[in-house]
Amino acid sequence: MCDGNMTLHTDKYQINMMYSHWVNGSHNDKAVFDVYFRKLPFGNGFAVFAGLQRIADYIRSLSFGDAEIAYLREQEENYREDFLEELRRFQFTANVHAVPEGTLVFPNEPIMRIEGRIFEVQLIETAVLNYMNYQTLIATKAARIKRVAGDDMLLEFGSRRAQEADAAVWGARAAYIAGFDATSNMLAGMRFGIPTKGTHAHAWVQGHATEQEAFDHYAAALPDQVTLLVDTYDTLASGVPHAIRTAKKLEQQGKRMNAIRLDSGDLALLSKKAREMLDQAGLPYVKIVASNDLDETLIFNLKGQGARIDTWGVGTQLITGGSEPALGGVYKLVARQAGDGYEPVIKISGNPEKITTPGLKELYRIINRQTGKAEADYITLREETDVREGKRIKLFDPLHPYLHKYMDDYEAIPLLQPVFAGGELVARLPQLDEIRAYHRRQLELFLPEQLRKLNPEVYPVDLSETAWQLKMNLLHQYSKRQ
Amino acid sequence: MCDGNMTLHTDKYQINMMYSHWVNGSHNDKAVFDVYFRKLPFGNGFAVFAGLQRIADYIRSLSFGDAEIAYLREQEENYREDFLEELRRFQFTANVHAVPEGTLVFPNEPIMRIEGRIFEVQLIETAVLNYMNYQTLIATKAARIKRVAGDDMLLEFGSRRAQEADAAVWGARAAYIAGFDATSNMLAGMRFGIPTKGTHAHAWVQGHATEQEAFDHYAAALPDQVTLLVDTYDTLASGVPHAIRTAKKLEQQGKRMNAIRLDSGDLALLSKKAREMLDQAGLPYVKIVASNDLDETLIFNLKGQGARIDTWGVGTQLITGGSEPALGGVYKLVARQAGDGYEPVIKISGNPEKITTPGLKELYRIINRQTGKAEADYITLREETDVREGKRIKLFDPLHPYLHKYMDDYEAIPLLQPVFAGGELVARLPQLDEIRAYHRRQLELFLPEQLRKLNPEVYPVDLSETAWQLKMNLLHQYSKRQ
Repeated sequence: MCDGNMTLHTDKYQINMMYSHWVNGSHNDKAVFDVYFRKLPFGNGFAVFAGLQRIADYIRSLSFGDAEIAYLREQEENYREDFLEELRRFQFTANVHAVPEGTLVFPNEPIMRIEGRIFEVQLIETAVLNYMNYQTLIATKAARIKRVAGDDMLLEFGSRRAQEADAAVWGARAAYIAGFDATSNMLAGMRFGIPTKGTHAHAWVQGHATEQEAFDHYAAALPDQVTLLVDTYDTLASGVPHAIRTAKKLEQQGKRMNAIRLDSGDLALLSKKAREMLDQAGLPYVKIVASNDLDETLIFNLKGQGARIDTWGVGTQLITGGSEPALGGVYKLVARQAGDGYEPVIKISGNPEKITTPGLKELYRIINRQTGKAEADYITLREETDVREGKRIKLFDPLHPYLHKYMDDYEAIPLLQPVFAGGELVARLPQLDEIRAYHRRQLELFLPEQLRKLNPEVYPVDLSETAWQLKMNLLHQYSKRQ
Repeated sequence: MCDGNMTLHTDKYQINMMYSHWVNGSHNDKAVFDVYFRKLPFGNGFAVFAGLQRIADYIRSLSFGDAEIAYLREQEENYREDFLEELRRFQFTANVHAVPEGTLVFPNEPIMRIEGRIFEVQLIETAVLNYMNYQTLIATKAARIKRVAGDDMLLEFGSRRAQEADAAVWGARAAYIAGFDATSNMLAGMRFGIPTKGTHAHAWVQGHATEQEAFDHYAAALPDQVTLLVDTYDTLASGVPHAIRTAKKLEQQGKRMNAIRLDSGDLALLSKKAREMLDQAGLPYVKIVASNDLDETLIFNLKGQGARIDTWGVGTQLITGGSEPALGGVYKLVARQAGDGYEPVIKISGNPEKITTPGLKELYRIINRQTGKAEADYITLREETDVREGKRIKLFDPLHPYLHKYMDDYEAIPLLQPVFAGGELVARLPQLDEIRAYHRRQLELFLPEQLRKLNPEVYPVDLSETAWQLKMNLLHQYSKRQ
């Protein structure tokens, strides 16, 4: 866990821009940035927002200390000494809004909004994206795995393959938010109160003269939590029979063995055979844990083949995101100070999907009162009141505006909640178990077809007519100007 | 950066095994573990070892403090109080050997060897693998990119897409070892002395009334390091002409603009056109920086198309490893205490490539004195002296032992160097620039065909006859026993 000063966990260009604003006297101008992503990872139908606790901790600890100032002075002779003095006095005074952790989120909607002095809000871009991108990616991957695992138990086993220590620890937390039941990482357990689980390694068996002795010794030491790894030599010929003998000895002490663990070979075949052997030995209560480079596709297929696996240990493919190791979240300027108010700004691009949505915006989840289900997410300008007052709204596809419908009987849940106001933390950040429960409730708002792993139904994210019109107007203005 | 107590950055099963050994009275028994990987990432011909500085820092700071003990007590009622007392007295007293950071390493050779009380050496498995796997992966990816970039400048730009903060910072260090020239991450710069580079964001341009004003203001603030991002509106119609005007104004002050940066669009086409425009404007010294989801394949192709790019900014694909986000390094028991000595142990598996190589081993790089090139890596048992004395050795393929040759005129470089002896750090860990220079010299030992990006020639890793015979004998013994 990173307890050091993280203020310089930022890109050099942020400091350069802070410096240039300061030299130009524009550093106190206000600006508004949106955080969002453009594309869902893994072909999933939704993402699960995570990282806010980490971001809040980071923002609260921002401070340029002696070491940071000394480094900047030596690094860059261009920086004037009074700029370094300004940094030394740095205080975060901005407003931060964010959706709660565990919320299902979708492309091209603002999941955070940062509003304040450009001098401050530019500094935090890098770390905010670093934390949000990773934790949201892993929570999303975990949600996919949870979807196929159903009520089976899920264990996060990825520490040794995680991309360094923070990823192991914060990844374990993200996985727990989205439905994992426990982690093997003790630091994550200690820091966040996540339940921890663990068995023993092959080395435990190899360190004994025989496998039977290894099992018996382990059971003697920890009789209430015996899970035995049965594939060190030969799963069915050696591991399972030895585990059965150990379980029988435990029964004589009035104890019940928890489980055996399979970690190689054909998990479908081995789990069925092992289940039979355990049942025939009168041990129907001994569960079967499986691990070995599992992901949602393998688990889905193993279940389809009738594998008799009760608990899934998932490592590399969860903790790194597997073949999609990054969420491409961005932090884009949407408004800048003009007099006492804001002027919306747009970023043009040759790629239409990279054009930003200008202005200070709100994000609502529109719940159909008749079905209880989410109908669409709805982005308005901050000053719009219709949706807050429950008036009729028009939902239309921003890319194909002729596709539209009207909604009257709805509940509009505002998703962007204040986290920092004037630099002060104003939100009560929920406990991890509350976040987990909130995430479960979130899932109930959506259709199974929107949540499925493969080719999910697309959930609509719509702009209000006013927000859409502003975007179109700015597009035309900029196109004319250039 | 993680400055907190990392002692519990371990899997629960390590603590469970420590406990079980302690209950059984075997916790002071000695054991030897090898760290190695089985498969090279990215289809590359080599990997670049990194992570040792981090591992050494971690080992030196191991200690179970009040918070850790309290957590374990509350966590697990099975743990006896005197076990917790044993942990409180925990001291690392083991021996650690490792290849130097920056060394080219290959599958199935021991790149670290850890020898000591099972109670200690079991604890560190998780963190050692977590650090080594990630940093070696990124150094290897960086080496691939360096290979295609040649003498072009390489910038690490991945912080916002890295898997949390440690990955950003330690990943920047790994990239620098393998040939990157600078990072954008200021914390990595401060901590490790890596040069930092940065320009400005699109937000800088959007935050001004016009692009020209934005460029001029930036140049006024930092006249000695002006790199202008030219794709906010239209690269060739707006960005480059505005940048040229700013460069001309700088010339009037006797200053030279560094570069323009392209961050979207067809980089081959845009760089050629931009180069032409800059040259025609009498600015041949203004360089062109490119970024936008680059990796070694894109850079190779862009260079093949004659793109006029001088500097490459590489982000996501470097800092995450792209589609291969984990090196599968393992930590395997190879010997355990038997009386005053060690008994070699083997781990059998249905997958032949997962069978371990037993015994306390040394690793040599055999340099052919006639060519000056590395001929093979050569693994012996520790007690073997022939190779150290320069006697004739037989090199043969462990999978196809009839393929063999003899070597007489060679230099044998021992790769496993002592890092900790009896728990004390005994190595002088080199400075980062020394590591980088050592890595460059390492590359010169190999043939271009072994270093190429696609379908590299396989470099041999051989066992001595004695080591091979021991493995065969143990295989037979275990097969008979089971």
